[in-house]
Amino acid sequence: MPGFSNESRNLTMMTDLYQLTMMYGYFRHGMGENQAVFDLFYRKAGDTIAHALAAGLEQVIEYIEHIHFAEVDIQYLRSLNLFDESFLKYLGELKFTGSIDAAPEGTLVFPGEPIVRVTAPLMQAQLIETSILNIINHQTLIATKASRVVQAAQGGGVLEFGLRRAQGPDAGIYGARAAIIGGCVATSNVLTGMIYNVPARGTHAHSWVMSFPSELEAFRAYARVFPDNCLLLVDTYDTLNSGVPNAIQVFRELRERGYEGTGIRLDSGDLAYLSRASRKMLDAAGFPSVKIFASGDLDEEVIWDLKAQGAEIDVWGVGTKLITSAGTTALGGVYKLAAEEVDGVMEPRLKISENPAKITNPGVKTVYRVYDNATGRALADLIALADEHYDENEPLTLFDPDHTWKRMTVSNYRLRELLVPIFKNGELVYKCPTLYEIQEYAKTELASLWEEYKRLHMPHVYKVDLSQKLWDLKQGLLNRHRAGK
Amino acid sequence: MPGFSNESRNLTMMTDLYQLTMMYGYFRHGMGENQAVFDLFYRKAGDTIAHALAAGLEQVIEYIEHIHFAEVDIQYLRSLNLFDESFLKYLGELKFTGSIDAAPEGTLVFPGEPIVRVTAPLMQAQLIETSILNIINHQTLIATKASRVVQAAQGGGVLEFGLRRAQGPDAGIYGARAAIIGGCVATSNVLTGMIYNVPARGTHAHSWVMSFPSELEAFRAYARVFPDNCLLLVDTYDTLNSGVPNAIQVFRELRERGYEGTGIRLDSGDLAYLSRASRKMLDAAGFPSVKIFASGDLDEEVIWDLKAQGAEIDVWGVGTKLITSAGTTALGGVYKLAAEEVDGVMEPRLKISENPAKITNPGVKTVYRVYDNATGRALADLIALADEHYDENEPLTLFDPDHTWKRMTVSNYRLRELLVPIFKNGELVYKCPTLYEIQEYAKTELASLWEEYKRLHMPHVYKVDLSQKLWDLKQGLLNRHRAGK
Repeated sequence: MPGFSNESRNLTMMTDLYQLTMMYGYFRHGMGENQAVFDLFYRKAGDTIAHALAAGLEQVIEYIEHIHFAEVDIQYLRSLNLFDESFLKYLGELKFTGSIDAAPEGTLVFPGEPIVRVTAPLMQAQLIETSILNIINHQTLIATKASRVVQAAQGGGVLEFGLRRAQGPDAGIYGARAAIIGGCVATSNVLTGMIYNVPARGTHAHSWVMSFPSELEAFRAYARVFPDNCLLLVDTYDTLNSGVPNAIQVFRELRERGYEGTGIRLDSGDLAYLSRASRKMLDAAGFPSVKIFASGDLDEEVIWDLKAQGAEIDVWGVGTKLITSAGTTALGGVYKLAAEEVDGVMEPRLKISENPAKITNPGVKTVYRVYDNATGRALADLIALADEHYDENEPLTLFDPDHTWKRMTVSNYRLRELLVPIFKNGELVYKCPTLYEIQEYAKTELASLWEEYKRLHMPHVYKVDLSQKLWDLKQGLLNRHRAGK
Repeated sequence: MPGFSNESRNLTMMTDLYQLTMMYGYFRHGMGENQAVFDLFYRKAGDTIAHALAAGLEQVIEYIEHIHFAEVDIQYLRSLNLFDESFLKYLGELKFTGSIDAAPEGTLVFPGEPIVRVTAPLMQAQLIETSILNIINHQTLIATKASRVVQAAQGGGVLEFGLRRAQGPDAGIYGARAAIIGGCVATSNVLTGMIYNVPARGTHAHSWVMSFPSELEAFRAYARVFPDNCLLLVDTYDTLNSGVPNAIQVFRELRERGYEGTGIRLDSGDLAYLSRASRKMLDAAGFPSVKIFASGDLDEEVIWDLKAQGAEIDVWGVGTKLITSAGTTALGGVYKLAAEEVDGVMEPRLKISENPAKITNPGVKTVYRVYDNATGRALADLIALADEHYDENEPLTLFDPDHTWKRMTVSNYRLRELLVPIFKNGELVYKCPTLYEIQEYAKTELASLWEEYKRLHMPHVYKVDLSQKLWDLKQGLLNRHRAGK
């Protein structure tokens, strides 16, 4: 879709300057072509992303496939007086030649486990850090927020309505994409509807009602143009005394012409009270099939409370708070060096921190999800070294990496590796599913998780364990570091 | 800058579907070419945007200038089976022919007053609502957040570092632009640096330090490549026992070669304590001119507290919380019908609400800022009908629109109209300033506001009053509405 998706946008220069200064440093020291492995993962940040739905991979692929520095970029970089000509020449010829493994979009992912693993020459791996983080952080955040909102709606449809409040055009376009992954049934965003072939929805605003001499005339005018999709916004003047009665009047007139009204929309006031009162009025007038839509500053908390108070709302239009992930505005994904080639050998790397939660997991790793064959549900995730092998016929002992006496041995399980190959030596080896396929996959992912882990508030903590080999490697490096002091 | 800015992106389809369904409704009812006036304004949302710096106008202009439905857009819209061929033909030929007046970027704006006023045929005015709101809401939010962070830094430089956590590419690119408007001295974002000709800054990450056998070797390697811009990240292993001593060692070696170290960067731990301890170590070692940079989950609150605790930090790198405006993730700007042509006459329009704060101001309006000539400071803003005239030689009585007994008469004042012409009948009549000119203008704007209004917490409320004529018009319409029930 030229002009819209990243496909036609060259985001190569969308990186932090320190990536370029580091690249130049490695270049000058002859280290730039050493293979390096980086992991992208997120740390726990409140209940709202205790688990997440991975999203954004398709846009990462578009970005990676189009990496190249244009002549205008090189001219600009030359003007900074930071880099020599040999480096600028290298940049001018750069293509991505590395490998990427990633969790497919819609995969349920947990704090601390790699979602994306990049294996590439050190310079390339640094260059792409910022854009990959930007894209994955954003879409994963919004897909996850949307899934919470959809969960709170308990089967009611959720429409994504946030474009006008999104943090810029891409936040609207790709945020709506991510919202569909998270389970929204449609978006108000026409461009996202077109690019990703998902339903765009919308009817009219208050300004429509204000543009006619009376609300009744405005409703009639709308019904004349859209008799088979007549959804009326009833709160412009007075919901129960004017809006709903006028809507009922117009639905009656429609019925005489052989059409059934679609619904009414409430956009202000107390939605629990107004929806129950409106439902009664509609039912009493003989319109039990007319649906009630609600919008206006909704999020999963408000929807949860409204449902608990018996609100009679069928469809939820959720805007600002979904599209900006109000409350948790960033996923906090990071991209950490895990291994590096030294004299032709891959050496594990560890980032130390006084905060144990910020110490990274070293080495070339992968992630397995352990499923209980008896229930089909996920038991725990296991981060292991990529060259470890497991036999599902053998019992598997899992242990808490911080409190190692907490352990559990399972049999009758199966393992699924979460990371799949995306690029191999610069070549794309992955075919992106459609957005609906991703949405369906995300539903099955969520269904595999016990309800206890999915509670909106204070969910039970799902275990992400380390394999014995990885744990030993990490402890060894930590002890060696301490001894080296 | 092809491929990067909105200049080359056609965002015409980036609108809510209800804009198109309303346009079609107006088209079918023969009302689509009636002139309409819409105001874009924001409502107060917490302390954080008690006042705002308008931003995003340049991108709005790029959007408006490039409005056109491509053949592929029309094909998609046809596939929705909502619109007839005559409407699709109209869309295919659509250009913006209206007028736009707006507060220039960097203007200090307050809740309730029009920032953008659109005067256009009703159909066009609806089409552009969503994209204008998206762009202005986003950039105004981030410029405002940045100005709060810059204020908290009390003269220390603030660098925008948030690209990796921004809500998608545009949020990073245009967010960094807005951050410069808000007073940031530079950005890490290379692309924004290139497009808007502002400084991009950055040195190295933890991964650089981890890529060498020791921290000291990593610092030396960096200093060899960037001897005249040597800023070292000192917290990879142990800030005070390893990072700062190693940095000092490398600064000594640099000095022997005739260079002075630039700075150290602290990215974790207690920044108040670590910065004071680092400052002492640097000073004792003879490096009082080496600056201390700090980063890591900063925002205006943390910076304010760190300053109060005597942190010795010269430059602040602020990422996630600035670029996402954590705490207040949306400006909440709205776009409301204010007047509409009926039989060739402009009639004022009013949106009623049970919540008085949500009742709009009717009519074709403008905004004046009233300055006290004695101090040069702003006294209050006055929303007036566009056809009112004021004589600065006459005393001016301002009154609170809710509590009308609260009034003040001023003389020795001057008035400045905040809205300036941007488009006239479809033609661009405004020349966008450079980003630095906007930043300078924003500084003078903030300087015109008494400190009491700028407090980070619980600021005094700046008055936005209505002219007597506008107040009378609004009351008249409200009373007429009430009587009409």
